[in-house]
Amino acid sequence: MIAHSAAMRIEIICTGDEVLTGKIVNTNFSTMSQKLEDVGLSVYWGTTVGDDRESLTRAFVLASERADAVIVNGGLGPTVDDLSQEVAAQAAGVELVLNEEWLVRMEGFFTRRSRIMPPNNRKQAMLPAGAEMIDNPVGTACGFAMDLGRARFFFTPGVPRELWRMLDEQVIPRLLARSGAPTVIQLKRFHSYGLGESHVDTLLAGVEDLVPGGGVKLGFRAHYPQLETKLTVRGADLDDIRRKLAPVQAEVRKRLGNFILAEDDQTLEGVILAALTERQGTLAMVETFTGGQMAARIASLPGAEHVFRRGVVSRDFAQVHEAVGAHGWPAEMSEAVVEAVATAARENCGATYALAVLIELDEGADRMDLGGTIWIAIAAEDEVVCRRSRILGGREWVRLGAIELGLDCLRRYLQGLPVVERIDFEKT
Amino acid sequence: MIAHSAAMRIEIICTGDEVLTGKIVNTNFSTMSQKLEDVGLSVYWGTTVGDDRESLTRAFVLASERADAVIVNGGLGPTVDDLSQEVAAQAAGVELVLNEEWLVRMEGFFTRRSRIMPPNNRKQAMLPAGAEMIDNPVGTACGFAMDLGRARFFFTPGVPRELWRMLDEQVIPRLLARSGAPTVIQLKRFHSYGLGESHVDTLLAGVEDLVPGGGVKLGFRAHYPQLETKLTVRGADLDDIRRKLAPVQAEVRKRLGNFILAEDDQTLEGVILAALTERQGTLAMVETFTGGQMAARIASLPGAEHVFRRGVVSRDFAQVHEAVGAHGWPAEMSEAVVEAVATAARENCGATYALAVLIELDEGADRMDLGGTIWIAIAAEDEVVCRRSRILGGREWVRLGAIELGLDCLRRYLQGLPVVERIDFEKT
Repeated sequence: MIAHSAAMRIEIICTGDEVLTGKIVNTNFSTMSQKLEDVGLSVYWGTTVGDDRESLTRAFVLASERADAVIVNGGLGPTVDDLSQEVAAQAAGVELVLNEEWLVRMEGFFTRRSRIMPPNNRKQAMLPAGAEMIDNPVGTACGFAMDLGRARFFFTPGVPRELWRMLDEQVIPRLLARSGAPTVIQLKRFHSYGLGESHVDTLLAGVEDLVPGGGVKLGFRAHYPQLETKLTVRGADLDDIRRKLAPVQAEVRKRLGNFILAEDDQTLEGVILAALTERQGTLAMVETFTGGQMAARIASLPGAEHVFRRGVVSRDFAQVHEAVGAHGWPAEMSEAVVEAVATAARENCGATYALAVLIELDEGADRMDLGGTIWIAIAAEDEVVCRRSRILGGREWVRLGAIELGLDCLRRYLQGLPVVERIDFEKT
Repeated sequence: MIAHSAAMRIEIICTGDEVLTGKIVNTNFSTMSQKLEDVGLSVYWGTTVGDDRESLTRAFVLASERADAVIVNGGLGPTVDDLSQEVAAQAAGVELVLNEEWLVRMEGFFTRRSRIMPPNNRKQAMLPAGAEMIDNPVGTACGFAMDLGRARFFFTPGVPRELWRMLDEQVIPRLLARSGAPTVIQLKRFHSYGLGESHVDTLLAGVEDLVPGGGVKLGFRAHYPQLETKLTVRGADLDDIRRKLAPVQAEVRKRLGNFILAEDDQTLEGVILAALTERQGTLAMVETFTGGQMAARIASLPGAEHVFRRGVVSRDFAQVHEAVGAHGWPAEMSEAVVEAVATAARENCGATYALAVLIELDEGADRMDLGGTIWIAIAAEDEVVCRRSRILGGREWVRLGAIELGLDCLRRYLQGLPVVERIDFEKT
């Protein structure tokens, strides 16, 4: 049994030659670990082994001796090198038994696709005797749970889409129940651009304490140029969660203010597209050194076909002027020039808004202090706003920062917020 | 001692809370494992643990009992949570001893940067007594090797740039020497687009046997839409390698023919840029559903500022026509239309070549059999060539395929190869 005073010791065992040999990067491990962290659980040991009976058996036995709960990922497929059920049964000293319920489910899965189930898929319905079946609503790999040694083992499919569904809906609730934690946990996320992790950490000092008795934990996930601020809330039920979350999220919104560009599953580009769609606006874009990466964020979204009018990409300012019909402007950059480019692009493409992001990259070889001057202008029907910024850190860093800064300025403009507000990443 | 008849058992232990909690994806593991595969070695067990004395000790002891060689990654930094040296010394039952040579190297490292070495960096020169120092020419984390149990342990830094250098120059040669393998190993790589892995595998059947006595191993790494074909060659010395490789690589080039788009460290976009630069050509691009991702591959490369004239991105064919000045063309797609767009783009941007990739995406929600019709035209001074293709597999799959197909057609055109040649991914 799990001692309620101590944290539950959770292990992850990733199986498969493709992962072991590095043919595929093990994002299943990192995402599983993050999903557990998000609900207040944590992984203390990770093991990777190939499709090999001896290694799998050893890994199961070792984990069964030291962990409280083990998630095994992969090896539930129909082929001969999928060994998880077989090795699990052997380790437990039981037989594999046909699970009639899953067999019927699988046959239905194939019937709905007008196909006959291949005979080797039957293997996927063979579970160790006594195992608890775990539903996989989106695939033929049946999950299952069983005890081995002192640990509860959860066997999950390697296909990411199937794994995430099973983890969220089946495995995590079971882990939380076993951990003795309040069963209701909610994750609230804020996405921001322009403030570094330590800056946000300072700004948010003390927000966890706004709930008497606790239950809210603050965390971060930095993926430059964006930062994700996470609030993990534990409560007795959903009402309790809402009660605890309300004052904290209000305070986070107040302190981070205009820097919050999206919440939860929203994205910066999604927020921009939604804001444009709502007002039946259309967009033209002009970019230089970002080379199409700004347009790529918006133009490929579902629904963008009604909003995204045209993007112009060049590395040459004269080309930019010509492309948008802003003739006769000097090649030298200035606020007037970038504003003229945005205005001309808007008119030329018949769009309601235009965003121009023109970059003067420093000369010379790539290096840590190579920088770029970023000229941003947004043209609307009756006004043009402009922002100049400078980012250092090498070619890639400048490019990534410029893309995010350009899109975030547009987000701010569409939301009626100041387009010019100092960010941590710029040198002025 | 290692039995020469059996394969050397190599383990990797990755350390650090950021990896264990999934804050960072463990690409160090997959890249290390691939690098070892590339020289004919293989990893049979992977362990991930946090910055925690108990877990580190357990992981070292377990590996020392079952492996021949162990690579430990991370934990060599100057801060208190970098524990590798300390735990290694404890596991071996020896003291930590100051390595004067490394201390001097570190002080020099700081002096060259006009800085004083902070006192806590001294910790990085403390190695377990009797350990072999392993050079790190690009950082302050000193690598080292020592025996624990039956295994040789190699301690490496977590910073990827430092790790790759140490692995390639120091660790792999030591592993090869211990494995009893010929010390010279070379990897030859071919990149292709358009043929699936099993197709290429069939095409290349028997190429390994062209060298009497063997020494060449064929392998693949698929990263859709490209496929990497790898030849690992083992030999007594470089001459021996060259002698073995020559007939095999000639045969691979012959059998894969026009589908080889680049070799070794070359990339598709790099090959295109080089071909254009060589003939002092310039390029204009027009793209629709790929939304700027084609332009992004070329425009941001160093040197592209002299070649890449302009890219036009839109989701709307009328906009495309207008943007390139191809007025009066019907909105309905045809060979004539896409050729007119490419021709107009070329003239309008004053470029020597223009590539137009226009996509008609199927209607409706995203699904596995959602497809797109891809119209490609390349305009040069005296001709226009055209290709129509159809790819199925959902929005993302169509987009990725279209980007690669469009760029690969341009590569073929610039190399004087047929632009139309059937690929495995298209439905016609």
